[in-house]
Amino acid sequence: MIMTKKELGLRIPGPTPLPPEVTLAMSRPMINHRGAEFRNLWREALAGLQEVFQTDNECIILAGSGTAAMEAAVANLVEPGTPVLVVVGGKFGQRWADLTKAYKAATFELQVPWGEGVSTEALREAIAAHRPEVVFLTHNESSTGVRNDIASLCAVCREAGCLTVVDAVSSLGGAEFYTDRWGVDITVTGSQKCLMLPPGLSFLAVSAAAWQRIKKINSPRYYFDLERYRQANKIGEAPFTPAVSLVFGLVESLRLIRSEGLERSWQRHALLQQMTRRGLEALHLELLVEEKWASPTVTAVKSPPGIDVEKWRKEVASRTGVVLSGGQDHLKGRIFRVGHMGYIVPLEILATLKAIETTLRAFGYEAAGPGSGSAASASASASAAVRTAEEVWLNWPSMF
Amino acid sequence: MIMTKKELGLRIPGPTPLPPEVTLAMSRPMINHRGAEFRNLWREALAGLQEVFQTDNECIILAGSGTAAMEAAVANLVEPGTPVLVVVGGKFGQRWADLTKAYKAATFELQVPWGEGVSTEALREAIAAHRPEVVFLTHNESSTGVRNDIASLCAVCREAGCLTVVDAVSSLGGAEFYTDRWGVDITVTGSQKCLMLPPGLSFLAVSAAAWQRIKKINSPRYYFDLERYRQANKIGEAPFTPAVSLVFGLVESLRLIRSEGLERSWQRHALLQQMTRRGLEALHLELLVEEKWASPTVTAVKSPPGIDVEKWRKEVASRTGVVLSGGQDHLKGRIFRVGHMGYIVPLEILATLKAIETTLRAFGYEAAGPGSGSAASASASASAAVRTAEEVWLNWPSMF
Repeated sequence: MIMTKKELGLRIPGPTPLPPEVTLAMSRPMINHRGAEFRNLWREALAGLQEVFQTDNECIILAGSGTAAMEAAVANLVEPGTPVLVVVGGKFGQRWADLTKAYKAATFELQVPWGEGVSTEALREAIAAHRPEVVFLTHNESSTGVRNDIASLCAVCREAGCLTVVDAVSSLGGAEFYTDRWGVDITVTGSQKCLMLPPGLSFLAVSAAAWQRIKKINSPRYYFDLERYRQANKIGEAPFTPAVSLVFGLVESLRLIRSEGLERSWQRHALLQQMTRRGLEALHLELLVEEKWASPTVTAVKSPPGIDVEKWRKEVASRTGVVLSGGQDHLKGRIFRVGHMGYIVPLEILATLKAIETTLRAFGYEAAGPGSGSAASASASASAAVRTAEEVWLNWPSMF
Repeated sequence: MIMTKKELGLRIPGPTPLPPEVTLAMSRPMINHRGAEFRNLWREALAGLQEVFQTDNECIILAGSGTAAMEAAVANLVEPGTPVLVVVGGKFGQRWADLTKAYKAATFELQVPWGEGVSTEALREAIAAHRPEVVFLTHNESSTGVRNDIASLCAVCREAGCLTVVDAVSSLGGAEFYTDRWGVDITVTGSQKCLMLPPGLSFLAVSAAAWQRIKKINSPRYYFDLERYRQANKIGEAPFTPAVSLVFGLVESLRLIRSEGLERSWQRHALLQQMTRRGLEALHLELLVEEKWASPTVTAVKSPPGIDVEKWRKEVASRTGVVLSGGQDHLKGRIFRVGHMGYIVPLEILATLKAIETTLRAFGYEAAGPGSGSAASASASASAAVRTAEEVWLNWPSMF
């Protein structure tokens, strides 16, 4: 075992580090998933999810990863020929499009440059031109670190009478999200992001209007048949054997979120984002996403000129134990990504920045600032990222 | 906490008790599911599964429960109108039929009385009459405790040129099963049975002939698109975020099975079955399934006359900590089921029989044997089940 590889440095957009309380809860012996004790846990989990989703709608717990819940939304809302609009500004927007096409929907893709959010104007025009019945949106695009303005986008969809489905897999719990207030018909999320669990569970919140539509949709589905889950929820059970150990963990993680307070969790993620962005800028690194679209849970950074970013990421991991993500699809080799979601605290962002700073220098990168070149300024700039991020932290209002 | 409820007494057909090694493995911190370390574990798991499946075919690991893998088999092999034959002799045979009908296959159900296996003659006739392209079978019907003779049934299917799909969810690892030797095109299993894991993973082994057919099948699928998993396996990854903690556990449980030896695991389950069946008979309880069809992993028992079996099961759990299963669908209230699969040893069967014996007596049940009624014979019969089962154990050949 090489101690510098200590697994505390996981800074990828999921899976994220686990709180020890969650690990302990998941270590319980198995129990009967059709017994009274499990039913109590299931009901507690459903209530806790409603709080995190900010909804009174029915919540659904699937054994499966985030894509399973995304497919469940599609299989229950879409038939061959259904006109749908998908906003595609990254890998996960593309996934909605791939899914709706797999179900043979008449899919219009509203393409947005990777690294930007979608404007309400562009959405309004596309809806007018293509008259979709369902609009698929991405709240937090993990591949680029963009947060879309779901409140405004959903208002546009509602005006036009479209149902809305939102992927909040890598944001729910870590970013302001109001399912009911914003009128989202189906919100989807996963366990291994801000909910501080291993991957293997995914969740949906389903509105009354969505249930109305679901009744009429004839696409084949069984494991993803949301109505079966709704019926089973009534007796505190799952229709198919649930992932018992992960549900033990879920109950505990929802208790932890309640105990921190959902808004405080949002605030903490906002702080982690600001520390990360300001710290990286202090190194004169270029961020992919401008401030107005910046994700509170993951930050993408353009590869510094002359640095082989994939080789460098390996070096960061082996030298410091900090694991970063690379780019996906056409951004591979062109960006790296820093995850700052879930069970992460400010000191860990300082450590992450330090790891980035030190290893970049070893790769020949000089954070070119005014007067760089002298020994004194090199030493001053040597901890520029950490000092800047620390200032953000110390000046953060109230609770921290 | 009430100590008699100690959770060691889970005797249901899944979830089953976890070995401490598995619990520990699942407690590891999260790692990057796209990193080298995880790829090594993934490859080890795939190789271990091939051994348990007794196959050289490609194995697939899904995040999802057993039904997810069943649906994956259906979604990849069946289109609207595809003629299929499903043998239905219990709740899980019925699930195949429900799934193929959800995908609009032309489904013929070969009904078999619950508690019996299907004969090769009945299957041959049904195939001749309905000319299915795919036949769906159940190896171990958990709802009744029947084991079907898959070797002979698959031979009949092969003769007729049909592909075969077998649900081995509640048997694989605990009962003789030879995917390749028997020519099963898709075998399906789950994590929470003989594989000694929590629920949340399911597995398939897919033959070359099945892959040929899959290419041509146009049913909508994405999360269940087996080809995506096959491609991702090539680089040691999953196409969608895998259930990392359960995969940690899987690698460990497969090591445990290898260390016990697969055939010894089969033998151990055979012993547990014999101890259970002979012990219950010594109490003059009537078994649902005759010897030739008896499952090595779960035993169904007819409710003794005059006993409210659902009320009695609650009493067993609260008095002794032993959790038994009831009947499902029309067998509810008419049988109870004893699970003896996975991480279970002979002494636990003795304890289970003792719990059944004692609590039945408290409910007024008298194991009517010759001369029963006298105090001496009551005392003698008081441990008839345990004594009988112990004899089975002591006379078991070799390894125990």
